[in-house]
Amino acid sequence: MTTGRLETFADGVFAIAATLLILNVDAQVGDSHTDLAARLLHIWPSYAAYAVSFLTIGIIWVNHHTVMTQVARADRTYLFLTVVFLLCVAFIPFPTRLVAEHVRDEGARAAALAYGITLTATAVMFQAIWLYAALGRRLLRADADERLVRGITRSYLPGPFIYSAATLTALASPTVSVLLYAAIALFYVLESSLFGGKR
Amino acid sequence: MTTGRLETFADGVFAIAATLLILNVDAQVGDSHTDLAARLLHIWPSYAAYAVSFLTIGIIWVNHHTVMTQVARADRTYLFLTVVFLLCVAFIPFPTRLVAEHVRDEGARAAALAYGITLTATAVMFQAIWLYAALGRRLLRADADERLVRGITRSYLPGPFIYSAATLTALASPTVSVLLYAAIALFYVLESSLFGGKR
Amino acid sequence: MTTGRLETFADGVFAIAATLLILNVDAQVGDSHTDLAARLLHIWPSYAAYAVSFLTIGIIWVNHHTVMTQVARADRTYLFLTVVFLLCVAFIPFPTRLVAEHVRDEGARAAALAYGITLTATAVMFQAIWLYAALGRRLLRADADERLVRGITRSYLPGPFIYSAATLTALASPTVSVLLYAAIALFYVLESSLFGGKR
Amino acid sequence: MTTGRLETFADGVFAIAATLLILNVDAQVGDSHTDLAARLLHIWPSYAAYAVSFLTIGIIWVNHHTVMTQVARADRTYLFLTVVFLLCVAFIPFPTRLVAEHVRDEGARAAALAYGITLTATAVMFQAIWLYAALGRRLLRADADERLVRGITRSYLPGPFIYSAATLTALASPTVSVLLYAAIALFYVLESSLFGGKR
Repeated sequence: MTTGRLETFADGVFAIAATLLILNVDAQVGDSHTDLAARLLHIWPSYAAYAVSFLTIGIIWVNHHTVMTQVARADRTYLFLTVVFLLCVAFIPFPTRLVAEHVRDEGARAAALAYGITLTATAVMFQAIWLYAALGRRLLRADADERLVRGITRSYLPGPFIYSAATLTALASPTVSVLLYAAIALFYVLESSLFGGKR
Repeated sequence: MTTGRLETFADGVFAIAATLLILNVDAQVGDSHTDLAARLLHIWPSYAAYAVSFLTIGIIWVNHHTVMTQVARADRTYLFLTVVFLLCVAFIPFPTRLVAEHVRDEGARAAALAYGITLTATAVMFQAIWLYAALGRRLLRADADERLVRGITRSYLPGPFIYSAATLTALASPTVSVLLYAAIALFYVLESSLFGGKR
Repeated sequence: MTTGRLETFADGVFAIAATLLILNVDAQVGDSHTDLAARLLHIWPSYAAYAVSFLTIGIIWVNHHTVMTQVARADRTYLFLTVVFLLCVAFIPFPTRLVAEHVRDEGARAAALAYGITLTATAVMFQAIWLYAALGRRLLRADADERLVRGITRSYLPGPFIYSAATLTALASPTVSVLLYAAIALFYVLESSLFGGKR
Repeated sequence: MTTGRLETFADGVFAIAATLLILNVDAQVGDSHTDLAARLLHIWPSYAAYAVSFLTIGIIWVNHHTVMTQVARADRTYLFLTVVFLLCVAFIPFPTRLVAEHVRDEGARAAALAYGITLTATAVMFQAIWLYAALGRRLLRADADERLVRGITRSYLPGPFIYSAATLTALASPTVSVLLYAAIALFYVLESSLFGGKR
């Protein structure tokens, strides 16, 4: 099987999951009849959560693209690993809403944990699809450059650990944990834009 | 007519139906002001239903892909059979929510029946589009391998019967029926990954 | 401009509009605590409305595909005509919900009119994009068969009139009008499948 | 990296954001039990807001397509600029609902400002992705016509200023500001259709 249709399906899930995030903002503003301007300012965590999750899904999309440039074909195991990976990605809007809604009340810890567990699972599954394809060059292009392949492997290894650490931080301080999720996304975009432009 | 645009449309429906499943989880958590952690644990059937339906749609997508590798063209009957098939797939989020919401109350039987009927109809329509294309090799590629074609026919024949049986089980025990839906999806993914990797 | 990306965007809107229809069924079932089986049977108009609108969007998709096989390029006017056409298609889920919710109460007339006006506008815009492309062969492929082009023009001419008539029928009897919408979709699928299979 | 998958992802976000707009109309009609016809007429701002935002997203899609015909490749910075641009596009349904809901009450100013800020940010990001690609011909096709490139640059320069002005108008009169948003979209479609047909 070639990978074209796999990418169409994956890009569909990425695009829908990212675009559905706006429904969370919508749900937060409610339709009470108090002053709209005050309500719009009050729900600022919704905008921040929207931006961080949209960026995070964007980062996953960019990285998935990088992986797929090296993958030449897919077998059934690879397809189902991708389905489980996308299952995690499509879950992201749910904890995003939890964080936006509860970051300022006593539900903050549970919300931050839910967000972190989802992103950790996504990072683990991302690792899994890459390692499944790359180990023994199982599904790679015949001309995939060995140094590039090792570089990709190295660059994705820290992902699950970074997100696990941010998730565990939520036990001590949900606020710090949420700031870490935002910082990881921003740092990644900036670092990758400034130093990875050539890739 | 070539099949490229048919696959784009089908992949769109698969991706959207799967990604919309998260809205069900969202609806379950509600926004009452009791302890969020307790609420998140309480709605575990929502996560299970999300995972089973996402996997099931993923399986249908993988199988639809396998079929389309053998189909070379589409006539109008085939297009409309596909539309009815996709109508069934896009219906899946609705009974998924019913099962997640009612598996633990007296609505479990109706919910399990609704889920099973939807999946049985999907399996029947999947069969229909394959048989319509394959009988007399109507729409198949000129070089489609006859043994592979017969293998596909054989492998899809049990689908409607398996899902009918699981659906009827709901009359005796909704819980067993729901466990069967999950077991079918998990078994299919594992079996197909472990033994079908070469296909 | 080539037409590839136009079709990707259009197929996206078709697929999303069709798949969003299930949210209407979801909204009808509600979450009251009466007997679920009774509620699921009570909302049968939702299933019928879902099926009719899904089929109707499927028919529009198939016809749009037929048109695009003859269109070789797009200018800006054609792109914006297509955007307005898709604006009509994406509107369909709204009157679908109105019909499903009100076909049995005193809102039936308004709901049937809203549905009919939406489909009439869609048929008019479909006509417009075809005529804009076909008149003087403005955007057609150099090798487009003149007889096929005239056949397409003839086959789409009745659309706006049929839907106008069904819409006006709602003034006399909303129920008959709704049955007409269903009959038009079913007739089209059957006629086109049985006699148009070669096209 | 080639730009094919970038366009698939962008077209997905455009199509979903535009199609999700109908959920706002849905939310406005509510399910109170007063006369449906009266309610459908009362919510006319929802239809106008739906049409203006759908057209606006359609214009952005057409312009993004024009840009991508000149862009030959993408680096990581360009990918992330596009993600942030799409983050703005996917945000549009939210202020659209605010305007539809509040244009006739005391929330009109806040709603018109939210709509204008979103469109201004979108116009700024659109400018950014074009200038990043075009400056020094960084990502352009080798055969991109210099006069065409300068023409595109010139035609997009006024966008952020026009939307900033319409946004600031909301401070004086929300109604005029909302009329300006509609006029900008209509003017653009008409001007571009009548005089840009050759492009």
